[in-house]
Amino acid sequence: MKLVVLGTLAFDSIETPFGRVENVIGGSATYFSLAARNFSEVGVISVVGKDFDVKHLDFLKRKKIDVTGVEKTEGKTFRWQGYYEYDMAQAHTLKTELNVLQDFKPKIPKNYEKCKYLFLANTDPEIQLETLEKIKPEHSFCDTMNYWIEHKKKELTELLKKVDGVFMNEGEAREYCKTPNLIAAGRKLLNLGVEKVVIKKGESGAIFMSDKEFFSAPAYPLEVVKDPTGAGDSFAGGTIGHLAKHGSFTDDWIKKSMVCGSVISSYVVEDFGIESYRKLNHRDIQKRYNTFKKIVAFDHKI
Amino acid sequence: MKLVVLGTLAFDSIETPFGRVENVIGGSATYFSLAARNFSEVGVISVVGKDFDVKHLDFLKRKKIDVTGVEKTEGKTFRWQGYYEYDMAQAHTLKTELNVLQDFKPKIPKNYEKCKYLFLANTDPEIQLETLEKIKPEHSFCDTMNYWIEHKKKELTELLKKVDGVFMNEGEAREYCKTPNLIAAGRKLLNLGVEKVVIKKGESGAIFMSDKEFFSAPAYPLEVVKDPTGAGDSFAGGTIGHLAKHGSFTDDWIKKSMVCGSVISSYVVEDFGIESYRKLNHRDIQKRYNTFKKIVAFDHKI
Repeated sequence: MKLVVLGTLAFDSIETPFGRVENVIGGSATYFSLAARNFSEVGVISVVGKDFDVKHLDFLKRKKIDVTGVEKTEGKTFRWQGYYEYDMAQAHTLKTELNVLQDFKPKIPKNYEKCKYLFLANTDPEIQLETLEKIKPEHSFCDTMNYWIEHKKKELTELLKKVDGVFMNEGEAREYCKTPNLIAAGRKLLNLGVEKVVIKKGESGAIFMSDKEFFSAPAYPLEVVKDPTGAGDSFAGGTIGHLAKHGSFTDDWIKKSMVCGSVISSYVVEDFGIESYRKLNHRDIQKRYNTFKKIVAFDHKI
Repeated sequence: MKLVVLGTLAFDSIETPFGRVENVIGGSATYFSLAARNFSEVGVISVVGKDFDVKHLDFLKRKKIDVTGVEKTEGKTFRWQGYYEYDMAQAHTLKTELNVLQDFKPKIPKNYEKCKYLFLANTDPEIQLETLEKIKPEHSFCDTMNYWIEHKKKELTELLKKVDGVFMNEGEAREYCKTPNLIAAGRKLLNLGVEKVVIKKGESGAIFMSDKEFFSAPAYPLEVVKDPTGAGDSFAGGTIGHLAKHGSFTDDWIKKSMVCGSVISSYVVEDFGIESYRKLNHRDIQKRYNTFKKIVAFDHKI
C-alpha cells in the first residue's frame, strides 16, 4: 500500500446557516481517503459498529479505497453532532458519542505494513504513536486537536519528535507552541524535529515551513461555504495523496501538493458532508489548480 | 502633484508586549506618505497644533514629502494612546484626543488639485467626500473604520459610490457588508460601483477583487512583530505610491503594487512607530519583493 490513514469513520449530524443533515457518513479517515484516492491508492485503519451499513463501506470501495483495515465490532459507530454559526469559523460540538472508538486498538493488515506514506489523523497520541511504530512507514504525518494538547501534551510531543510532518490548524499551533505568532510556532515545531510543518488557516489558506522554505498557499475564493466539516482532513488527504502518487517528499513537491489539497477542500465545503466527493473528477481538480496559479500570480519586476 | 493623501498627523503613545513609546509621530498620513515616497512624490493634507515641532515637519520634508497642505493651527495636535495584547491582533484604544481635528476643514493647495492619485485615509466620510470633490483626481481610494460604518453609513456609502478603489480591513468589510464571507463582502463592494477592492487581513496578507480578477497577497513571514501600528496605512501608501510611480491603474499593476505595499508594511511592524522608515531603502524593498515571489511559487504542473 502506498498510503495509509489512521482515523475515524463516523456518523455526523451537522447544522450550518445553509441547512442541516443527520447521521451522514463522516470522520477524518472518510474525508482523508476520499481526497487522497483522486491521486493514489489508499488504505484505511479504523473501526465501526454494527450500525455501519454495508452500503457505506461499498461506497468507499467503489471509490477504490482499501477498507481491509476497517474493523467491524460490537456496539455503535462513533457519532458527532455539531453546528456552525454564521461566520463558519469553527465547529461547535453538541454531542460526541465515542462508542466503538472507546476501546479502539488498531489492527494493521499485512499489506499496510511498511507503506510509503502514513497519515495519523487526530486521535489519542498514544494510539497514533503505537500505529506509527507498528507500520514503520517511509514518511509519516500527524494531525491533533486542542483536547490532546491540553490532556496528553507529553505523549503528543513524543509523537511530534517521531513523525516527519505535521498538519495543525492555526489555533492548535498557537496553543501547542504557546505563541500567537504562527511563524514562531512553525519554528518551534521545526526545532522539535518535525521536518515539514503545515499550518491550516481555513479561509486564509495554509502555510508550509521547513528548515529551508516558507510557502503560503491561498484559499480558493468562495462566496458560499455551506459546510466546512472535513475541510482539514480533505486538505491533508489531497496533499499527501498527491505526494504519494509521485513518491516524493521534497519541499517543492509538498508546495504543489498543498495546492492540490486546497483545491479538493474548496470543493468539499461547497456542499454538506461528503456530497461533493460523489461527483468530483480530475477535470474539476485541474480547473481549480489552474485558477490557483492565477490567484497568486504577479509580475516579477517592480 | 502625482499623489495626495488626506489623513492625520498625530502623536501616538503605544504599548505592546515588546515595549512602549510615548508621543511619537504617527497618524495615517504620516505612515502613508512615508511608504509612498519610496516610489512617488506625495503631498499631505492634514492639520497639526502649535505643539507639532518643526523637526517633525522637517523630517517629512527631508523624506521629500510635500507638506504644503499641512495646516498649523491654534490648539493641540491629534493624540492617540493605545496598546496591543499578546496576540497583536488588534489595537485597543485607551485615549483619543481629537484636538485640532475637531474642526478640521481641509485646505487644498493649488498644486494638489487634479492630482492623478488621491488616498482618503480613515476620517469622517463627509470630509473625505468634500476633499474628493474639490480635488477631482484621476483615481481615488478611501479607507474607513468601524466608527463611521456605525455612525455615518449613509455618507460612507455615498463616498464608496464615488471612489475608484477601497482599502478596508477584514473586520470593516464584514461589518459594512453584513456578511462573514470576505469574498461575498468584496462582491458587494464591487456591486456598489467600487472598481478595485482591497481587503487587508493583517498577518494573512490581503486580497484584491475587481470585476475580472481575484488576487491573494500573502503576508511576509515575521517571527517577531513589535508594533503593528501604521501597517494598514503603510500598505496603502506602498501600493498607491507604486501605482503612482508607474501611472497605472490596471489590475495587473495593482497586484504587484500590493506586493510592494506588503513589503513596506512588513518592515514597519518590525519596529515601533515610524522607526523602520528612518533606514528603509530601495535595496531592502527589492530584497523582500524577491522573497514574496518565492513565498507563493509552486510548480505549475500537477
